[in-house]
Amino acid sequence: MSTFDETIVALATAQGISAIAVIRLSGKDCISLVQKVFKGKDLTQQPSHTLHFGTIHNGDKPIDEVLVSVFREPNSFTKENSIEISCHGSPVIVKEIIKVLLKNGARLATPGEFTKRAFLNGRFDLAQAEAVADIIHAETDNARQAALNQMRGGFSKEIQHLREELIHFASLIELELDFGEEDVEFAKRDDLKKLIHNIRQYLRSLIGSFDQGNVIKNGIPTVIAGKPNAGKSTLLNALLNEERAIVSDIPGTTRDVIEDEMILGGISFRFMDTAGLRETSDVIEAIGVERTRESLRKASLILYLFDLTQSSIEEIRHEADEIRQLNIPVIYVGNKMDGASPALLKQVEQEDFVLISASQKKNIQALKDKILSRFHIQVKQGDVLVTNVRHYQSLKQTDDALNRVLSGMDGGITGDFLAMDIRQALHYLGEITGEVTTDDLLANIFSKFCIGK
Amino acid sequence: MSTFDETIVALATAQGISAIAVIRLSGKDCISLVQKVFKGKDLTQQPSHTLHFGTIHNGDKPIDEVLVSVFREPNSFTKENSIEISCHGSPVIVKEIIKVLLKNGARLATPGEFTKRAFLNGRFDLAQAEAVADIIHAETDNARQAALNQMRGGFSKEIQHLREELIHFASLIELELDFGEEDVEFAKRDDLKKLIHNIRQYLRSLIGSFDQGNVIKNGIPTVIAGKPNAGKSTLLNALLNEERAIVSDIPGTTRDVIEDEMILGGISFRFMDTAGLRETSDVIEAIGVERTRESLRKASLILYLFDLTQSSIEEIRHEADEIRQLNIPVIYVGNKMDGASPALLKQVEQEDFVLISASQKKNIQALKDKILSRFHIQVKQGDVLVTNVRHYQSLKQTDDALNRVLSGMDGGITGDFLAMDIRQALHYLGEITGEVTTDDLLANIFSKFCIGK
Repeated sequence: MSTFDETIVALATAQGISAIAVIRLSGKDCISLVQKVFKGKDLTQQPSHTLHFGTIHNGDKPIDEVLVSVFREPNSFTKENSIEISCHGSPVIVKEIIKVLLKNGARLATPGEFTKRAFLNGRFDLAQAEAVADIIHAETDNARQAALNQMRGGFSKEIQHLREELIHFASLIELELDFGEEDVEFAKRDDLKKLIHNIRQYLRSLIGSFDQGNVIKNGIPTVIAGKPNAGKSTLLNALLNEERAIVSDIPGTTRDVIEDEMILGGISFRFMDTAGLRETSDVIEAIGVERTRESLRKASLILYLFDLTQSSIEEIRHEADEIRQLNIPVIYVGNKMDGASPALLKQVEQEDFVLISASQKKNIQALKDKILSRFHIQVKQGDVLVTNVRHYQSLKQTDDALNRVLSGMDGGITGDFLAMDIRQALHYLGEITGEVTTDDLLANIFSKFCIGK
Repeated sequence: MSTFDETIVALATAQGISAIAVIRLSGKDCISLVQKVFKGKDLTQQPSHTLHFGTIHNGDKPIDEVLVSVFREPNSFTKENSIEISCHGSPVIVKEIIKVLLKNGARLATPGEFTKRAFLNGRFDLAQAEAVADIIHAETDNARQAALNQMRGGFSKEIQHLREELIHFASLIELELDFGEEDVEFAKRDDLKKLIHNIRQYLRSLIGSFDQGNVIKNGIPTVIAGKPNAGKSTLLNALLNEERAIVSDIPGTTRDVIEDEMILGGISFRFMDTAGLRETSDVIEAIGVERTRESLRKASLILYLFDLTQSSIEEIRHEADEIRQLNIPVIYVGNKMDGASPALLKQVEQEDFVLISASQKKNIQALKDKILSRFHIQVKQGDVLVTNVRHYQSLKQTDDALNRVLSGMDGGITGDFLAMDIRQALHYLGEITGEVTTDDLLANIFSKFCIGK
């Protein structure tokens, strides 16, 4: 535990010029450390969750007037004594303050080190700690809600509960082994089977939620396809531009807009660049071109565009059939509706086409509504979704191990092998919530965090 | 005062993904407004300067777990009831929280509106309010210190004191006017003259500090000049690159580096682009080229570069003489020292040249030391410097008006004209500290602030 004697410090807010910036410290001695450079009340005498005005000094030189928040263990994010210094939002000031704190014994925090300490100090389990990063990086309201649910417990409690029951059985079976030849059976095999069935049922509902969870966290890879001059890039711009205008309606909340991403109904649709979609238009000369087919296969949604002024209904039907064979959700879009013959319009409408004019930005909302009707997800408070691929893999591994336990029992394997399979399942289950960790695993998880978190 | 019933809200930290973000509210009812969307303790019952953990909700939907700081009037930045919400640093969350606050009756703050309220509520005068923006935008430690000194009082108190004395005299003179023909003299003319002399002495020390203050706030426009192939852009890169490496030694404090700016000894040297300095090298074919001369004249420092492998001592002396006639501080730099003849090196060294090799990055530090020896400024706690051009102009206008008062008295003008001139001086003096303001003036000042400040 010697690490935790160290006071760590980092800028916790985004860098840049702003009204205020917050510098965060954590560690047993951080309050007295800050007191060394603070002129104002004696912070070491202040109760938890109080704010104090004063000045941070470097020797005799005042650096800035600040507000200092005092948090006392265990009532802080890290469960350690913690300080937050709210100073003017100038990079020069932030740097000077951090420098003087380093001079007085703090060290720079590594990425995610505050959250790592919170985890190691038992504030939450590993799955919850990971949700802290997810909540920060959430790009949609659904992703935020899913991460918040996970941070507030999610499947953690249930998995811990099931794990404890399983541990109980593992112990009983291991106890049987101690009795060697005596042929006792402390662990009732039927009860164990019932428990494992229960656990597997729960695991499978979690595993099954990953498809949706993954979509929520990572968005839907989407391709706009169609013959040359069907209007693909015009449609892409029509979809994106409108979105860009919506994004920035509250000052200061403009996201670093990800190129070619459209957020619709709380889901991010990421437009993939099919070879040459943007530069030239001679892309899908024939749908048979293997390279294009390949990129289409990676999509979870295809918006397939027809130029209604250039195609007959027979050509359209033929092309649509070819696309359908890819077995990927597809929305057929008839473009240049204004120039099409009324007869053709009627025919394609009957085949559930969305009719638009990309260049006139006509019916773009109808297309969005159509997309939304296919992908309507609304994460609610308390919904438990697996969004993390690490959790997904551990859940699958647990399920496989439990399957081995069951088939072992059916095959009448000995107690020692049974115990080993159960221990394997417990290992995978423990990885999710962090009862079982390695330094590598933790380093890998927390290195992806922001500094200051 | 109806404005101040309104609760204003804004993101106060820089935008972007980060550990935490802080949303700030101010206004009479802001605590009960936040309480409407907060689940946790009853904030309306909490004392000032306390922190409370809880959840911000939109209806039944939790948005984020947050820490709420409560400040009660008059003990807040704005002297009003204020709230700071510290949430996870996700633009999606910031936006959702601000949206729900707007829905519950807050309105978005305009740029600088928190500071404007602080000023209008009497927390500080206008010069101090302006220093808040300066402290945030300070790019050097000197600029930060100068702004901090101004924010903490600076010349405000002294100017207010002198202004009151002057008001006293103006009142006495206006009283004399009431007595019409009676030829009374309530305002002793000798005392008035003495006061005006005192005021002007103080004003002039402030006016005189503006040269330095301006350099501190805005940096020193610097030009690297010299004949083609003297090595100008190589030197520029050598000076800048080193700086860039130094700038980012603490994560999260990297400034948005201003192109072609070097910070040295707490002063920013801004390299001006003399025509073509960077693209080609046939710039200063002869120093006589008027366009180059023009850009040199705007500089406050010239680094004049000689290629020591291509010039004789006579040529160098001739060129140096020409530059000297510009009457701008110049540092002569002998480049390509490694290829120069020992005799020439000795000669130019005697003429106080700095010898370098820009391409080898040799002696760059010596050049920096030379620059520093010319521009050594160290702003200390309590130093009063005028850095704001608006203050500078008002100080000059006050001084001019006081001069008119003095010459009026010497010329024996009547009391009513005397009173008018004094009132004029009072007007300009009052503009500095904000006793005299117009909506336009305030709008102009605060519109340059960040949102959230």
